Amino acid sequence: MMKFEVSHRDGATRARTGRLHTVHGVIETPMFMPVGTAATVKAMTQEQLESLPARIILANTYHLFLRPGHEAVRALGGLHAFMSWPHAILTDSGGFQVMSMKELTKVTEDGVWFRSHLDGSKHFISPEKAIEIQWALGPDIMMTLDECVEYPASHETLSRAVRLTAEWARRAKEHYGRLRESEFASRGDRAAGAAGPPDAVRPSSPELFGIVQGGTDRTLRRESVEQIAGMDFAGYALGGLSVGEAKEALYETVEDAAPLLPEERPRYLMGVGTPADLVECAAQGIDLFDCVLPTRNARNGCVFTSEGKLVVKGARYARDARPIDPECGCWVCRRYSRAYIRHLFASGEMLAATLATAHNLHFYLDTMRKITQAIASGTMKDLVTAVRTHA
Amino acid sequence: MMKFEVSHRDGATRARTGRLHTVHGVIETPMFMPVGTAATVKAMTQEQLESLPARIILANTYHLFLRPGHEAVRALGGLHAFMSWPHAILTDSGGFQVMSMKELTKVTEDGVWFRSHLDGSKHFISPEKAIEIQWALGPDIMMTLDECVEYPASHETLSRAVRLTAEWARRAKEHYGRLRESEFASRGDRAAGAAGPPDAVRPSSPELFGIVQGGTDRTLRRESVEQIAGMDFAGYALGGLSVGEAKEALYETVEDAAPLLPEERPRYLMGVGTPADLVECAAQGIDLFDCVLPTRNARNGCVFTSEGKLVVKGARYARDARPIDPECGCWVCRRYSRAYIRHLFASGEMLAATLATAHNLHFYLDTMRKITQAIASGTMKDLVTAVRTHA
Repeated sequence: MMKFEVSHRDGATRARTGRLHTVHGVIETPMFMPVGTAATVKAMTQEQLESLPARIILANTYHLFLRPGHEAVRALGGLHAFMSWPHAILTDSGGFQVMSMKELTKVTEDGVWFRSHLDGSKHFISPEKAIEIQWALGPDIMMTLDECVEYPASHETLSRAVRLTAEWARRAKEHYGRLRESEFASRGDRAAGAAGPPDAVRPSSPELFGIVQGGTDRTLRRESVEQIAGMDFAGYALGGLSVGEAKEALYETVEDAAPLLPEERPRYLMGVGTPADLVECAAQGIDLFDCVLPTRNARNGCVFTSEGKLVVKGARYARDARPIDPECGCWVCRRYSRAYIRHLFASGEMLAATLATAHNLHFYLDTMRKITQAIASGTMKDLVTAVRTHA
Repeated sequence: MMKFEVSHRDGATRARTGRLHTVHGVIETPMFMPVGTAATVKAMTQEQLESLPARIILANTYHLFLRPGHEAVRALGGLHAFMSWPHAILTDSGGFQVMSMKELTKVTEDGVWFRSHLDGSKHFISPEKAIEIQWALGPDIMMTLDECVEYPASHETLSRAVRLTAEWARRAKEHYGRLRESEFASRGDRAAGAAGPPDAVRPSSPELFGIVQGGTDRTLRRESVEQIAGMDFAGYALGGLSVGEAKEALYETVEDAAPLLPEERPRYLMGVGTPADLVECAAQGIDLFDCVLPTRNARNGCVFTSEGKLVVKGARYARDARPIDPECGCWVCRRYSRAYIRHLFASGEMLAATLATAHNLHFYLDTMRKITQAIASGTMKDLVTAVRTHA
C-alpha cells in the first residue's frame, strides 16, 4: 500500500505535514489539487501547471467516462499518457457529479442510473463499474463510489447514504482487490515472457481511497467513519461537505471527524474550499484538498489576493496599472496589470481566463506553502488566528 | 528614419533577407507577424509568443480605438506597457476592418464614418485621426489610413480608392510630421528640465508606412505605387490583396508591384497568407507579412503540418497518439497527441485553441526560418519549386 509519512506535527493544532509517495512522484502534504475535469485544468497548459509547481491534479471520472470514454483513455496508455502529465493524478468516483445533477439521476441499492448531460444517453454506474472505469483511466489514486447528499437532507436520506456508501465501499474494495490480483498475475506472466504491452505504457495500478459520508450529523458521520476506516483503504476522504451547509457546520464536522480517521493514512477533504477553509481544515489534520473555486472564479473574473477577493473584470480597474496582487510573485503579477486583464475580460479574450487562473492557482499553492511552513515552525495556530482576524 | 539593411539577396529570385531596426529590437526579415487584434494574440500568453520566438506582432487600431480606447492605452503607457510586450508592434490603420464591415461604413473624401460592431455607436476616422489614434497607442510602426476595396470591384471604385488612398497618405504624412515635431519639441523641453512624464513611460514616436492600393489592376496598382513611393515613407505596404481574388492574380500583382517599391525600404504584404503564399511572395522581395490564418484556423481545429493541413478536431484522430506533425519540434508536438487535442476540441476546452495556435504560429515562424535559410544559401528557387510541387 501507498507509503505516507507524517514529517511534522504542529504542537497546538492537529495539523501535520507529510509525504505521499505515488508512482508519479512524492506529494508534499498538506496539498491542494487543481481540478482538471476533462483531463485539462481549464485554460492552463500542463507546462503552466508544472511551473506553479502543481504535482498532483484531480480529474473527473464522470466526465471522462462520457467523453472521450475510459476505454479510449486506456487505449491511449491511461490518463498520464493521454494528457501528457507525468505527475500524480487523483480521479473522483463520480458520486459528487451524480448528486449535482439530481434530476438526471436515480440511486438504487446496486448503483446509480443517470443521464448524460451531453446527449441524454442513459448509463449505470455500480461501485464495481466505478472502479473499472478508474482502473482504465489509470490514475495514482482512485475513489470508491459514494452517495453524496446535498444539504439540507432528512435524517433518513443521510442515513441511507451512509449505509449505501459503506456497502458500496465494501463492494468497491472487493472488486479493486480482484483487479489488482489479475493485474499482478498478468505482470507475472509478462515477466515470464508472455505477450502483452510493456509495463511502461500500462497504467500502474492505482491506490484506492474510501469516502466517509454523513453530512453534518455527528452521529451518522462518526458511524460512517467507523465503517469506512474499518475497511483498510490507502487513504480516507471526507465527502458530502461544502454542499450548502454553514461554514461553522463544515468546520465542526471536520474537527469532529478528521481525528477519528486513521492517523497513519492521508486524509482528503473533498471539494473544499476557500483559502481560509484550507487553513482551518489543515489545522484539523487534513492532508489533501480539491476545489473548483480558484479555477472557476478565475474564469468569472474573480481573483484571490492577500487583501481578499478582487473582481478584476470590474470597470474600476480599467486604468489600474498595478498587478492583481502587489504582494504576489507569480508570473502573472510580475508581468500583467489589472487594467490589461480587465480589458481581456471585457473583450472576451481567452488570455483573461489563463492569467486569472494561473494567478489563483498560484495563490492556492502559495497558501499551502504557508500552511506547510507554519506547521514546520509550529506556528499553525497563529496562521489560523490571522485568517480568522482577516475574515 | 528607421534603419533597414538588406543582408542577403537571392540570386535567382527577388528574395532578400534584412534587418529592420526598431526601438524594441531588431526584426530579421522576411518575417511573419502574428495578429494580436485586441492587444492579445488570441489564446497565447506573451511568454508563449516570446518562446516561438515572435519579436514583432500586429495589433488592430480599429479594435483598440473602440476598446479599451486609445486614450486609455496612452494613459497606461502605450501598447507595449499595456500588454507587457517589450518587442516590436505594428498597428494597422483600420482601413481593412472598415472594408470588412461595409454595411456599417460610409467613405467620404474626408475620411470614414462607421458604426461600432460592439454597440452600434457612430465614429469618424480621418487620415489625421488614424495617425493620432496610433500615436496614442505608441507602436513601433504605424500605417496610413487607406481605402481597402473588396474583390471584385469596378474600375471606378478601384480608381477612387487609389486616388483617396494617395490623398489620405499625403494628409497622414503631414499630420505625422506635425506630431513628430511637437514630440521632439516636448522632448527638448523635458531635456531642458521642464515637467512631464519620463521618457521611459512615453510611447516612443512610431515610424510610418504607406499603403499601396489598386486591386489586381496592373495600371492602377502601378499608379498607386508611384504616388505612395513618392512620399518617402519608412516602409511600404501592398494592401487590398487577399480579399477574394484568385491566387494567380495575387501572385501576379505582387510580382509586378513589389519590385517597383523602393529597394532600400521594407515591403509589407498585408493580410497574406498561407505558408505557400509566404514562400511565393518572399521570392518577390516581400519582407513583412501578417495574417489571421494560423491563429483563426487553429481556433477552428485546423492545423498546418509538413504534409499539409490537418483538421485535428476530426473524429478520425480520436485514438491517434501521434503529435500534430511528427516532423515538428514545437513544444506542442513534443508533448501532446492528436487524440488529446481532438478531445479538447470535442469538449470545448480552451487548451485546444492554445495548443493549436502555438503549433500553427511555430509552423509559420518556421516557414520564415526556412525562407531565410534558403535566401542565405541561394536556394530560394528550389524552395519555391518544392512548395509548388507540394501544392
